[in-house]
Amino acid sequence: MEKRILLTECADSTGLIAKVTQTCFEHQLNVVRQDQFASAEDSKFFMRTVLEGDFSCQDSVIRKLEQILPEGAKVRLNDNRRRRLCVLVTKEAHCLGELLMKCYSGTLNADIVCVAGNYPVLSELAHKFDVPFKLVSCEGISREEQEERMMKVIDEANADYVILAKYMRILSHEMVSHYPLGKLINIHHSFLPAFMGARPYEQAFRRGVKIIGATAHFVTDNLDEGPIIQQDVIKVNHRYDPEALAKAGHDVEQMVLLRAITKVLDDKVFIHGNKTVVF
Amino acid sequence: MEKRILLTECADSTGLIAKVTQTCFEHQLNVVRQDQFASAEDSKFFMRTVLEGDFSCQDSVIRKLEQILPEGAKVRLNDNRRRRLCVLVTKEAHCLGELLMKCYSGTLNADIVCVAGNYPVLSELAHKFDVPFKLVSCEGISREEQEERMMKVIDEANADYVILAKYMRILSHEMVSHYPLGKLINIHHSFLPAFMGARPYEQAFRRGVKIIGATAHFVTDNLDEGPIIQQDVIKVNHRYDPEALAKAGHDVEQMVLLRAITKVLDDKVFIHGNKTVVF
Amino acid sequence: MEKRILLTECADSTGLIAKVTQTCFEHQLNVVRQDQFASAEDSKFFMRTVLEGDFSCQDSVIRKLEQILPEGAKVRLNDNRRRRLCVLVTKEAHCLGELLMKCYSGTLNADIVCVAGNYPVLSELAHKFDVPFKLVSCEGISREEQEERMMKVIDEANADYVILAKYMRILSHEMVSHYPLGKLINIHHSFLPAFMGARPYEQAFRRGVKIIGATAHFVTDNLDEGPIIQQDVIKVNHRYDPEALAKAGHDVEQMVLLRAITKVLDDKVFIHGNKTVVF
Amino acid sequence: MEKRILLTECADSTGLIAKVTQTCFEHQLNVVRQDQFASAEDSKFFMRTVLEGDFSCQDSVIRKLEQILPEGAKVRLNDNRRRRLCVLVTKEAHCLGELLMKCYSGTLNADIVCVAGNYPVLSELAHKFDVPFKLVSCEGISREEQEERMMKVIDEANADYVILAKYMRILSHEMVSHYPLGKLINIHHSFLPAFMGARPYEQAFRRGVKIIGATAHFVTDNLDEGPIIQQDVIKVNHRYDPEALAKAGHDVEQMVLLRAITKVLDDKVFIHGNKTVVF
Repeated sequence: MEKRILLTECADSTGLIAKVTQTCFEHQLNVVRQDQFASAEDSKFFMRTVLEGDFSCQDSVIRKLEQILPEGAKVRLNDNRRRRLCVLVTKEAHCLGELLMKCYSGTLNADIVCVAGNYPVLSELAHKFDVPFKLVSCEGISREEQEERMMKVIDEANADYVILAKYMRILSHEMVSHYPLGKLINIHHSFLPAFMGARPYEQAFRRGVKIIGATAHFVTDNLDEGPIIQQDVIKVNHRYDPEALAKAGHDVEQMVLLRAITKVLDDKVFIHGNKTVVF
Repeated sequence: MEKRILLTECADSTGLIAKVTQTCFEHQLNVVRQDQFASAEDSKFFMRTVLEGDFSCQDSVIRKLEQILPEGAKVRLNDNRRRRLCVLVTKEAHCLGELLMKCYSGTLNADIVCVAGNYPVLSELAHKFDVPFKLVSCEGISREEQEERMMKVIDEANADYVILAKYMRILSHEMVSHYPLGKLINIHHSFLPAFMGARPYEQAFRRGVKIIGATAHFVTDNLDEGPIIQQDVIKVNHRYDPEALAKAGHDVEQMVLLRAITKVLDDKVFIHGNKTVVF
Repeated sequence: MEKRILLTECADSTGLIAKVTQTCFEHQLNVVRQDQFASAEDSKFFMRTVLEGDFSCQDSVIRKLEQILPEGAKVRLNDNRRRRLCVLVTKEAHCLGELLMKCYSGTLNADIVCVAGNYPVLSELAHKFDVPFKLVSCEGISREEQEERMMKVIDEANADYVILAKYMRILSHEMVSHYPLGKLINIHHSFLPAFMGARPYEQAFRRGVKIIGATAHFVTDNLDEGPIIQQDVIKVNHRYDPEALAKAGHDVEQMVLLRAITKVLDDKVFIHGNKTVVF
Repeated sequence: MEKRILLTECADSTGLIAKVTQTCFEHQLNVVRQDQFASAEDSKFFMRTVLEGDFSCQDSVIRKLEQILPEGAKVRLNDNRRRRLCVLVTKEAHCLGELLMKCYSGTLNADIVCVAGNYPVLSELAHKFDVPFKLVSCEGISREEQEERMMKVIDEANADYVILAKYMRILSHEMVSHYPLGKLINIHHSFLPAFMGARPYEQAFRRGVKIIGATAHFVTDNLDEGPIIQQDVIKVNHRYDPEALAKAGHDVEQMVLLRAITKVLDDKVFIHGNKTVVF
């Protein structure tokens, strides 16, 4: 029997779980797992329901739910086809390498359809895994022009998600707003909101922190302030200079990015204002 | 409005979530939070539902659910009164101390109504918090007699849960079976199933492990093999001798025991064979 | 045989370890353990040496080391007498409770000689452990006057360290500079430098972070910017409201503060500018 | 100036640190970092000293140390040339993939000179990184013969270390004793000594543990009982079936193996009986 994931998002009110599960039951779709959350501060309701059954009734289920749920409800029923990823990089190999490896081994339910970088160094790595690499250099052209070329590359890749895997450029308002919120995922090399901005490992060294971390988040206009999907940390000590901090940080970065993308691909992440609900 | 927790446990079948939530909806009880799990290997269904509303309909809800759920379903509707704890100890203060403190400060929704020990050393600590201490020494009497006296103390305490907070005695089959499964909670000073049995820190030292841990579990006849509620670990290294391992372990023990009891008091723990479901 | 700890701090140069260990060897003091660190950015040398032997030669050792080490070297030879702690509190019990318990059980090599608070609520808890409580209220008096009274209480306690165990007042420049750097230790209820300032759990909630933490640091003039001794974190998720974040945070706070004080009492912490070296 | 690492291992006695550092000082070799450990239970002394200077005096230093240190002392002075790794695999890609990636990116100071497997599936991955793959199948030949062929492959690779990166064969006494202790490193897919033997994730599932882990260790005759180099864990819950446990475990396995090898390549690991000293 097929499995699909029903994602429900609406204003909170009484009886929502009963309405959704009753509708599924009537369409002979069995609930395998259900997670739900209602926010206290703004009364939003989020539910992820794993269903099993015959989905020829799909349109009828969605139509029925849109009728009985509060106005403005968003209802989606996702299949589990492999998603398409476009990965943006600069010079560092670890995040790209981990994604290539996990797509190659089948651990990630996705294909990297394109790697695009502002430097050519990672083209060799992409090509090892038979993934096309597009160089979109910043040399000799304006920021606007570079971004336009990059957007063209991304659009041609026809990707479900764009992963900024240590792409060391700040995206302009124009570029961010070109994509729907939730499509661009960034790995930030610090435990946000500590050490926002440039050179976080240098900042961490100067501050003498005992723990460093990494943050995967959706990209919004406000640099380093998009909804956080995943964070993790490792312990460090006085022996770590900025270079050692960066090296230790790379392990966390690649792990946090991988986990965030896994959650997103499993349809376990809802965006809730500038925060996320992650089931 | 009052909040209560509905606990449902039965054989898995289709439509269970719909049936339960529909019944609550009909009784005008709103679902604040719901967690559910169905085991693949033996098709058991577990659900915890936080409800809000007027519970004068309580009996009617339970009767209805018992009718429509699969035969043998267990349905409970718990209020959040403070539970009564009886704590068994030997000589070590850290776990008892943490429980006394957290009950005193109101962090744990429970009262320690009695501390019972086979040595007198911790009576002073119990008395600081105005908790009666019962000495049930092993000196000069048989194991059976000591256990009988201890069971008498426990029974008189009229406790909801009996916490073995580093009580260094192995309970007999007779004593364990005197209580319903789920009433006795033990903290074991190792990361089970590693280092079962006596002197786990000595064992850990000899094996040269790099991580030690603690395990909180329900007590069953099979020593160290009851359903695990909570586990945690800390990193150690070659500098730790057995004494240092034990000292480091104490921090984990008190934290793991506290978290396990918090989960149990929040009605978030189901027993599932020799395992647990912890929401 | 007695054990003592030799603490050496000076400008880095060649042969320092040889000079120190040779001097100890000549005085028939055996090195049980030695940790050393030289900072690359400003060439400072820090060494902690655990010695075993007959310390009647103590003055001779120190005099010799001061002669042969670079000018300005600081050399101390600490015995392991129980240190005296003065604990400052406001209303929250968890950090004070943990310190009282660990001093009571002998886990911390220290005595709490005085608890001082700007509210009376924790006097009962201090008295349970036979520790005097001094109320230094802020009511009806100026900040200067309250601080003067508090400093008088602290000075009369004749304490080695002053622990700010959730003392929710910002110390003035005058009060901070009244004490040598390294004497005042604070627990900050966030993972510094994230969420500096007031209400960090409220800030963490609004930002939607997936991890919260705590920071123990020496107090300096720059609020929340003193040298960090210890940090730790726990994972949280969208279900945590500010109150739940605070409750979860309390466990980390008490653990981080305890570990920081343990390190300080073991003479394992050097201050290095606005950072620390922790062996 | 060149840096090298001096490794000293001998019976413990007084003045060892003074003797070693004095000797280095006399040869104008500066100590950049030093870590030392003396075991209480069997009085063994281990020291790792990072030296900086002109090493043309190398032979003289070692000769002098062998003279003045206790009889039987082992003294080595290692340069930091890239080491040669031979990696043994079966079918799972994650550990091999991580090692290939980290050697490729220069994070590991090593080259994988050969991958050998008892199945052909990972040859494609090895070839992507231009590493030769040798198939040493078990089909149709005796265990002895397969091991002989494998040893021939390993010996021809002229490797410093042999990494069993999820090589799912138990090595015979003959094969293990063919190599010096410390040359063979294995990643075991459980938190040893829990779940020794086959199918640890299945065992972990049946036991209902809340944490799973991985262990990197040197290989000895006693399966799963060699000296542990590195361990780490992740939290799991009742929702993890054996397959999900294995998938979660893979992340820990690859991380633990990478960290263990990093420590070994940095000459930070001493073998001490069936334990290790890891600086």
